[in-house]
Amino acid sequence: MHKIPRTHTCGELSVSDKDKKVCLKGWVKSWRDLGGLIFIDLRDRYGITQVVFSPEINTAIYERARGLRSEYVIMIEGVVYLRPASNVNKNLATGEIEIMVHELEVLNVAKTPPFEISDDIDINEELKLQYRYLDLRRNRLQSNIVFRSRLYKVVRDHLTALNFVEIETPILMKSTPEGARDFLVPSRNYKGKFYALPQSPQTYKQILMVAGFDRYFQIVKCFRDEDLRKDRQPEFTQIDIEMSFVEENDVMQVAEDLVKGIYSEMLKRELKDPFPVLTYDQALQEYGTDKPDLRFGLIIKNLTGIFCKTDFKSFAQVVETKGVVAAIGFEDSGKITRKMIDQYTGFVQSLGAVGLVWLRLRGTGLEGSLTKYLKPEEKAALQETFQDLKDGLIFILAGEYEPTLLRMGELRLRLGQDLNLIRKDQDSFLWVVDFPMLEFDEKEKRWIARHHPFTSPKREDLDRMEMAPHEVKARAYDLVINGTEIAGGSIRIYDSEIQSRVFRMLNISDQEAEGKFGFLLKALQYGAPPHGGIAFGFDRLVMILTGSASLRDVIAFPKTASALSLMDGAPDVVDTKQLEELGLILIDKK
Amino acid sequence: MHKIPRTHTCGELSVSDKDKKVCLKGWVKSWRDLGGLIFIDLRDRYGITQVVFSPEINTAIYERARGLRSEYVIMIEGVVYLRPASNVNKNLATGEIEIMVHELEVLNVAKTPPFEISDDIDINEELKLQYRYLDLRRNRLQSNIVFRSRLYKVVRDHLTALNFVEIETPILMKSTPEGARDFLVPSRNYKGKFYALPQSPQTYKQILMVAGFDRYFQIVKCFRDEDLRKDRQPEFTQIDIEMSFVEENDVMQVAEDLVKGIYSEMLKRELKDPFPVLTYDQALQEYGTDKPDLRFGLIIKNLTGIFCKTDFKSFAQVVETKGVVAAIGFEDSGKITRKMIDQYTGFVQSLGAVGLVWLRLRGTGLEGSLTKYLKPEEKAALQETFQDLKDGLIFILAGEYEPTLLRMGELRLRLGQDLNLIRKDQDSFLWVVDFPMLEFDEKEKRWIARHHPFTSPKREDLDRMEMAPHEVKARAYDLVINGTEIAGGSIRIYDSEIQSRVFRMLNISDQEAEGKFGFLLKALQYGAPPHGGIAFGFDRLVMILTGSASLRDVIAFPKTASALSLMDGAPDVVDTKQLEELGLILIDKK
Repeated sequence: MHKIPRTHTCGELSVSDKDKKVCLKGWVKSWRDLGGLIFIDLRDRYGITQVVFSPEINTAIYERARGLRSEYVIMIEGVVYLRPASNVNKNLATGEIEIMVHELEVLNVAKTPPFEISDDIDINEELKLQYRYLDLRRNRLQSNIVFRSRLYKVVRDHLTALNFVEIETPILMKSTPEGARDFLVPSRNYKGKFYALPQSPQTYKQILMVAGFDRYFQIVKCFRDEDLRKDRQPEFTQIDIEMSFVEENDVMQVAEDLVKGIYSEMLKRELKDPFPVLTYDQALQEYGTDKPDLRFGLIIKNLTGIFCKTDFKSFAQVVETKGVVAAIGFEDSGKITRKMIDQYTGFVQSLGAVGLVWLRLRGTGLEGSLTKYLKPEEKAALQETFQDLKDGLIFILAGEYEPTLLRMGELRLRLGQDLNLIRKDQDSFLWVVDFPMLEFDEKEKRWIARHHPFTSPKREDLDRMEMAPHEVKARAYDLVINGTEIAGGSIRIYDSEIQSRVFRMLNISDQEAEGKFGFLLKALQYGAPPHGGIAFGFDRLVMILTGSASLRDVIAFPKTASALSLMDGAPDVVDTKQLEELGLILIDKK
Repeated sequence: MHKIPRTHTCGELSVSDKDKKVCLKGWVKSWRDLGGLIFIDLRDRYGITQVVFSPEINTAIYERARGLRSEYVIMIEGVVYLRPASNVNKNLATGEIEIMVHELEVLNVAKTPPFEISDDIDINEELKLQYRYLDLRRNRLQSNIVFRSRLYKVVRDHLTALNFVEIETPILMKSTPEGARDFLVPSRNYKGKFYALPQSPQTYKQILMVAGFDRYFQIVKCFRDEDLRKDRQPEFTQIDIEMSFVEENDVMQVAEDLVKGIYSEMLKRELKDPFPVLTYDQALQEYGTDKPDLRFGLIIKNLTGIFCKTDFKSFAQVVETKGVVAAIGFEDSGKITRKMIDQYTGFVQSLGAVGLVWLRLRGTGLEGSLTKYLKPEEKAALQETFQDLKDGLIFILAGEYEPTLLRMGELRLRLGQDLNLIRKDQDSFLWVVDFPMLEFDEKEKRWIARHHPFTSPKREDLDRMEMAPHEVKARAYDLVINGTEIAGGSIRIYDSEIQSRVFRMLNISDQEAEGKFGFLLKALQYGAPPHGGIAFGFDRLVMILTGSASLRDVIAFPKTASALSLMDGAPDVVDTKQLEELGLILIDKK
């Protein structure tokens, strides 16, 4: 019976189709029996069309329509009628018409769904993932996934027009666990050996530059076997870009133009360029983070200079040990009570601060317990620093340089939210550059690459790589949107000698470097061009562009925080025979 | 120094750029010292430009140019000169100009490559894979990879215009080893459990139809842990398509239009449609294969009817046991000697045939040792069957129906090649439909799904699924180009009851079905639309379109037949710590 082809989708018919005989297929969204007529909203991906069953047209079919239930899949044939003016639904593209049905076929029945297919309801997260196919029928998810599909195309069209070549790199690659943990794939042909799933196609895209492809991109799945923080997925998608014969600005320009193109095409918004650029040092100093949200102020002031000769002991000690006294001042007008200040104190203490010092700045001068320790010139300097405040509150943290500023950055974010300062109607775009090359890994007690070990040091820092590695800056750049890092990249090392030196700087022995990255070191010796690139977090980009609250709302089949797929039950046990073929046995579970 | 941006690529300059000051960057392809001038062919992805160093322009730079070697990466600045008419190279896009250099920088040196970067040389396969970055610099591979990149776009543009939504399905999925062997990924969070890499996104794309996406596609990596036959790769790419509310013809039309679009866009060739359609039975009967190459004739004739009352014992026995007597006749004119016939006999025997019977058909009548067993009416019938032959040779195989025809198919292919009958300048397109649903797996001694277990049986065969499973035909279709299956698909089962019956037919117990495919059976109960789809082998398509001899020539980083990556040495050993985290130990290697 369903050999009759549909003539239209459920989002297509309008007054101009009046009197047409049509065939629609879709899902029963809702069912109403109104005084002898049955009205059904028929739904598909494209929209909703109202179809009407009347006993006067065909009694048998009218009776069968009474048996329809939510989410049944049906085929109807009928004639397009104009709705009476009083029944026109202006919220619906097809709201001016309805179909008077003369033929009905149930293509498939449906059990009663465990939740209603509607955007306006709150559904248990586990249930949603378990019945993902029903969750995906909801309008918001459907439109997110369709949006995502359009975004792939916009990105590809944009980059293709710029002569970028899309090249697939392997998913079964060599395990090089530098950074996060690899997912492993046991080899059957070489028992005891493993492939790894790529955390990024980093080495391959560099090899492609050595191969002369000049401009590469790929929208590619990457994998990290990490304990999942909120809103991370074990597999994620990135827009991966690499270019030859470039400096930082060339890559940043391509990335910035791509973002502008995306906002223009997808949201019809023209962004102003160039995006502002902050150095890492500035970002840390003024915003207490490497990914500042510029949609509000609350810039951090460095008061260390003011307190260089202070009598207040805890500040004096901080000054002496080259720490920082950092402050945020804001117009308060007495809204923040002592109790609230205590809560903020608790907040910064939970981040490791000793305590929170506060001052009120009013027309009459400074108030607060700190004031009694302050010299007149310190008071004057404070008042000048915060001269814009009429009835202000100043929060001060003092301590070790970077940790203190990072805590201040957290406090700034919280204040921005609490004081409702974030202009959510705008987006803030920002480049952060000149990152330190290294960061100290407290767990492993060694310096690790902040970006990755293939990132080039700044030319002017090359000479002190061995003597003062922590002072070396990297040729790296991050693109930040509204306080979220949306892309990160760098100019790469293209000299195998420098690459070897960097491996040593990272405490990777020559032997280990050879074993893990020997192929790259070798490739760099056969005519590697200067090159660099960037990678965008695609899922997060879709999330920001669609205003979604979670990655799960922009990925068709997401996993839970423990990397479970609730719909199909992956991961699952496998046959012992399969493991034997791989040369593996399980360590007995207790 | 290399901060100077390049002004042009090496494939860009022409006479209209005369006298321009330009900066090029690229690889030294070749080096000639001709009477006081040094000529270098500078190469990048876009082309080759001749650059000239003269001691009269700058002696120091001329001297430095003498130190350049093949594959060095250099930057040059210079002025565009027109070449003297006698030096114009018409084979080169930039062949009318050259650059007189006044500035040179060596961006990177290169060791002497282990092979010349040239299309015209024969290189050891292992060496090529080991130095893939050098192999990829060759013109043919570069253009194949760029072609592949363009093909992605053509496919996506085509399908997007038809309202298909591109949706990413998971790479970490549930292991459902039905068909080939899965690659497994051990789970760290759930020790003893495993993800599998998808052999195809089959179940997910069906779920997407249940979710109402109506038209889905994806260009997606798939994985099979098989002992690799020639020209298979453990990871491969497919164009995956699924549609709701469709019959066979709808999917075939979309696929056919896609192929036509591809040939038109990529090769500027307009294909005639509709493509011919053969049933599986016809294809087997006439070509001895389910993927006939229609670029030549040699159609197999079924002689069983002629020999239904034969005195020739071995034929009589075949007729009695419902086997087949099959023949190919061709114009030979005595070219095929007895010795050659012996070789063909050896060939079919290596495929399992008892022997090869042959007859010569000349103006004077039939010749050959068989003739003495033939009745006059059999001779007459044979002569009528092959009446088009003037001086012909007839090869006859007799035996069990399908194996005999398959052997005849192999013989037909070999004869097509030997007799130079294949019209290599054309492409033959063909649909094969009405496949048997099942095939008998000799190894596992059970019926397995020929396509996959989600393929719908033909409506008219539903009733005999349990009684005569081997007679059931599937709603499956393959697209064949030049004897290669390039796409395969089917209308799927959308009724969970029928799906359960098919699982039982395949000897998959209800419990096993529930464990492996329960999520799909469940999804089918919540309003699954009728749906079907198709998948194209993308790598193979690129291979055919570029006329490449091997999949390795169209994949950036291919693996060897034993799934090794010779460039980076994957798979490799991993730390015991990594295995411990996964709850695994290796079975000791002997």
